[in-house]
Amino acid sequence: MKTRYLLFPAELLADYTTRVLVASGVDRAQAQITAQVLLSADLRGVESHGISRLFAYYSQRLRNGIINPHPQVKVIAETPATLALDGDNGLGHPTSHQAMERCIAKAQKTGMATVTVRNSNHFGIAGYYAMMALPHEMIGVCYTNSRPHIVPTFGCTPQLGTNPIAVAVPAGEERPYVLDMATSIVPLGKVEVYKRAGKPLPLGWGVDSNGAPTADPEAVLTGGGLMPLGGPELMRGYKGYGLALMVDIFSGVLAGSAFGVYTDPKLKSGARTGHYFSAMRIDAFRPPTEFKRDMDDLLRQIKNAPKAAGAERIYIPGEKEFEAAEHNLTHGVPVMAEAVAGLRRDGHELGVEFDLEPLGEKIVEE
Amino acid sequence: MKTRYLLFPAELLADYTTRVLVASGVDRAQAQITAQVLLSADLRGVESHGISRLFAYYSQRLRNGIINPHPQVKVIAETPATLALDGDNGLGHPTSHQAMERCIAKAQKTGMATVTVRNSNHFGIAGYYAMMALPHEMIGVCYTNSRPHIVPTFGCTPQLGTNPIAVAVPAGEERPYVLDMATSIVPLGKVEVYKRAGKPLPLGWGVDSNGAPTADPEAVLTGGGLMPLGGPELMRGYKGYGLALMVDIFSGVLAGSAFGVYTDPKLKSGARTGHYFSAMRIDAFRPPTEFKRDMDDLLRQIKNAPKAAGAERIYIPGEKEFEAAEHNLTHGVPVMAEAVAGLRRDGHELGVEFDLEPLGEKIVEE
Repeated sequence: MKTRYLLFPAELLADYTTRVLVASGVDRAQAQITAQVLLSADLRGVESHGISRLFAYYSQRLRNGIINPHPQVKVIAETPATLALDGDNGLGHPTSHQAMERCIAKAQKTGMATVTVRNSNHFGIAGYYAMMALPHEMIGVCYTNSRPHIVPTFGCTPQLGTNPIAVAVPAGEERPYVLDMATSIVPLGKVEVYKRAGKPLPLGWGVDSNGAPTADPEAVLTGGGLMPLGGPELMRGYKGYGLALMVDIFSGVLAGSAFGVYTDPKLKSGARTGHYFSAMRIDAFRPPTEFKRDMDDLLRQIKNAPKAAGAERIYIPGEKEFEAAEHNLTHGVPVMAEAVAGLRRDGHELGVEFDLEPLGEKIVEE
Repeated sequence: MKTRYLLFPAELLADYTTRVLVASGVDRAQAQITAQVLLSADLRGVESHGISRLFAYYSQRLRNGIINPHPQVKVIAETPATLALDGDNGLGHPTSHQAMERCIAKAQKTGMATVTVRNSNHFGIAGYYAMMALPHEMIGVCYTNSRPHIVPTFGCTPQLGTNPIAVAVPAGEERPYVLDMATSIVPLGKVEVYKRAGKPLPLGWGVDSNGAPTADPEAVLTGGGLMPLGGPELMRGYKGYGLALMVDIFSGVLAGSAFGVYTDPKLKSGARTGHYFSAMRIDAFRPPTEFKRDMDDLLRQIKNAPKAAGAERIYIPGEKEFEAAEHNLTHGVPVMAEAVAGLRRDGHELGVEFDLEPLGEKIVEE
């Protein structure tokens, strides 16, 4: 499968995103934060969570009254190390940015802290918020729930979102460890890409409406669903299902937000997405210089370990994404040509023309 | 494969375990805690972590001076919500029991807390300590590292332990959610069982010394290693590898204990196992009655969801283990006949005869 991308300067993409959100009713400061989170996804090569979703996920929902453009974030409950917030149905990005900032401030005082958010919306990539802990010499954790796509082991209908787990840990000379993983094997968007290309799926990514593994993308998208990390029972896919459920408990049930089948954004009540943030001070446990020395040691042990036949590198979680971001900052941020056409169409409709000149293009073969 | 088990009354197994540990130099109170943790593994059907390990993992290491029978647990660092302990090379079980108790006490005051332990030893099942939070209406989390068995994606040698993740969450009328999972697909003991039975492995559980999937148990055990949850790169096994690495960071590096290749118990420095415990008060976030009502709702959504063709039930993490424990408390705790022979032999050598009368036996076919 070949995918064509157009390359744009990062700051122009962020500026365009901000203008669209402001035109959709959002305050400039909130729009700027949202633009930074969306841009970071495209920079890191996670284009499914970037600017391509600007209109369908955010601008249109803001203008249709499904997302509140002027939320008043409220405190539901607070202890020295915990805080439960209500996002008042605002955009997930600025609310989550605020939640993680408050989490870090609380952790400064008590050693660690956790903040939950209820009544929020899709917040982009979970890794962004976990990484906010890094400059503070803290470990950051972030979970969020989403509408059902994962079929539990022995089931045949989607019951849980692709509920991601993100963990960011500072290192010394090495780049930080940044895990940002869906608890399904692949996201639904990946199955859609195979469908458009008319290609069969690798067996195991998804199941049909009987719960049986299928190579047919259409069967996964219509009536079937995604397999949890691990795949079938023989390969212990119930662990991936267990993790997806854990994320729904922490960010849905504990936060007092929607969970399970109630997370569908098409429901009258809105998405009521829940988030979970945690931050831990390294120096609450041991001197950060020692911690960073040991992190470098551990990461290097793994990177320098012998490679499998035919493999050139062993990657640390987040390493590919850091390299992509550095490359894209210099050479332009890739946006799928198809998504660019959508931005032009939807931007014109809103009266915020997508008139950015691409720096060039690239074709990615998968 | 057929496995023969002998069934024993739970209290007699715990009593025997206590006597062996006392004869190995441990104080009675510490021995009793250790016996409860080991028994809970056999009760819950996790026999690989129960009494079958009593001599090789604990009694012999205590008598050989590899584990300290009289540890002085010390505080390394403390903040309101965090505590870093040094286990002084004692048995992992009583040290971890104490650590989780202190974690719960701190969480009572600050809403949540985390306790790390360095310089400890194998502590049995991680789920035991996570579940200690349940009677306090708290969520419990526990990680621990162990010596390398998992081969990272694109590697061909073991770099990380099967580093488990345990999470326990109270519910209302439903049983609690208890995830207790290794981050490999299967434990090494499972591969050993296939080897003894002369059976080929399901392809994907392990790799040979070239990093290629193999059905040969011997190739996995000699020179190869275990696949992380998820399996090969195509099935996103790098997520399982990323989780195994996260556990090593939290319980090894953050705790200031051994990590990566330094976790081998055969090293001169001992195992220096690290643990990570966390506890969160439900009522710090929302009223527990509401939380439990929603937990029941979520768990029932999943249990009552349509089943895959040929499947009868969808299980909640921990559900099978709760049912096994209830059954085994009534009908006797199964111990593999092979392990019983070992207990008789090693018990005789120590002078603590394993003279328990079995209540009966059962044959399990897999």
